[in-house]
Amino acid sequence: MLSKEQISEWFMSLQDSICNALEQEDGKGKFTEDNWVRNEGGGGRTRIVQNGNVIEKGGVLYSAVHGDVPDFLLNENLGVLTPKNTFYATGVSIVIHPENPMVPIIHMNIRYFEMSTGVWWFGGGIDLTPHYVVEEDAVFFHSTLKNSCDKHSPAYYLDFKKWADDYFFINHRNETRGVGGIFFDKLTQNQNVSKEQLFAFVQEIGNTFAPVYTQLMNRNKSKSYNESNKKWQLLRRGRYVEFNLIYDKGTKFGLESNGRVESILMSLPKTAGWEYDFTPEINSHEEKTLSFLKKEISWI
Amino acid sequence: MLSKEQISEWFMSLQDSICNALEQEDGKGKFTEDNWVRNEGGGGRTRIVQNGNVIEKGGVLYSAVHGDVPDFLLNENLGVLTPKNTFYATGVSIVIHPENPMVPIIHMNIRYFEMSTGVWWFGGGIDLTPHYVVEEDAVFFHSTLKNSCDKHSPAYYLDFKKWADDYFFINHRNETRGVGGIFFDKLTQNQNVSKEQLFAFVQEIGNTFAPVYTQLMNRNKSKSYNESNKKWQLLRRGRYVEFNLIYDKGTKFGLESNGRVESILMSLPKTAGWEYDFTPEINSHEEKTLSFLKKEISWI
Repeated sequence: MLSKEQISEWFMSLQDSICNALEQEDGKGKFTEDNWVRNEGGGGRTRIVQNGNVIEKGGVLYSAVHGDVPDFLLNENLGVLTPKNTFYATGVSIVIHPENPMVPIIHMNIRYFEMSTGVWWFGGGIDLTPHYVVEEDAVFFHSTLKNSCDKHSPAYYLDFKKWADDYFFINHRNETRGVGGIFFDKLTQNQNVSKEQLFAFVQEIGNTFAPVYTQLMNRNKSKSYNESNKKWQLLRRGRYVEFNLIYDKGTKFGLESNGRVESILMSLPKTAGWEYDFTPEINSHEEKTLSFLKKEISWI
Repeated sequence: MLSKEQISEWFMSLQDSICNALEQEDGKGKFTEDNWVRNEGGGGRTRIVQNGNVIEKGGVLYSAVHGDVPDFLLNENLGVLTPKNTFYATGVSIVIHPENPMVPIIHMNIRYFEMSTGVWWFGGGIDLTPHYVVEEDAVFFHSTLKNSCDKHSPAYYLDFKKWADDYFFINHRNETRGVGGIFFDKLTQNQNVSKEQLFAFVQEIGNTFAPVYTQLMNRNKSKSYNESNKKWQLLRRGRYVEFNLIYDKGTKFGLESNGRVESILMSLPKTAGWEYDFTPEINSHEEKTLSFLKKEISWI
């Protein structure tokens, strides 16, 4: 039977391989590592890269925390909990903000959670936020995710793509964060799927990250850009900040549960901006990008 | 008896006089005006200034909205409400982000709320967020507020200063947003104070804004600064963004109640930044500033 330690060790090794692949494609940026300990149990390995050739600011985080069930979980539908119950949570979280506005922002999180009551689940998501939508990149991104999903279930891609459209949505702007991707949560065993099979799926997604994103870095990192492109990047990063601080459940949970602030907020860009009532020019790439920030676009 | 229309008209005239005073002190920046209408009733007059001599981005907003009681109010302790009840809310909100990091950010909001059930109250607050704390400026700011408060009640300054310390607090950073100020809410009549007296207090605070902030602009606008000061300003603005998007009740209410997004988020700076685990140098002005971002500092 697959143990939480095996899952956690694999997450840790994934952190290593992703950091290596990103450093190689970047050519200059090097991850620095902070090991931290959680007072209530467990800890993490935060890896940050700043001011690379391609990556301006990014983090690849691994953590495995455990202890008494935190208060926030008592509101979840997890069966009868008593103060004696404990939890264990482990995962990898990534956000990469590139310097060149032609390179997209990317995010991935995969996680495993279990309780001493026997309840457990996997969750995760990966989504792409281009400052400028390049259709062939969005198609490539979604096609690769679909291929990864299809190896495990014919239903996964469409179900999880819809979930991502709904999750990565900036409600007050009525726009999606980017071109979406996949999102899933509380996947546990049933008559059709075992824990091992679900873990294999999560591993598949984790292993998809590096080849997909280094490909997108490579395709776009040499593109030229001007001051107006950089200004637009600031505004799009502003939207990213709005999503992460207002809607993202991981951020909310982290801050409310007294998590390590610098690790949680590594997702925020080096710079972001807001301009009152900015409207892009008609027929500009900026306007075209906004037209793609909608739910239910079939990229494939 | 003081009517909601009288209160609202006074708020509108305050918007005029504050915009005039800020334009005069800035010397270059001019407010542009957007009038907007709320589908459910009422509307507002949003005035924004960008790229002035002193003010990089700021807003002075007036609004008066009314209609059916919104859902969020059903959770408040307002007595028995029925779908037939209506509400009326009017006020002025200001946030000013200066270009020079030696000039502090300021915020003020004063508001009046009433329901068709007869319940009504005044609320408000004003607080100062220096990128670099200058003690004599903080003392001047608090002394002026105390003088204004003292004309109306000997208890107001200390009570409302404590309220501001608790309200303008970035919990996950364990730091105050700035050097505080005053905050008050749900002030209504009782045996000791009439509606007219409370309105006179709110007017006093409103009238305090322009002389206090133009003085602070004037004192600091010619100070020199370097790139490192600008970088620090970005980080402090990042904290301002964190507060406004995560904790500020006005922002939350505005976004959740489908308010006008560009007016609500005028509070965000033109640019902001985040750096992983930034620690200021020992004995620097930056470090000294952090040491002042605490509750319960007696500035007077």
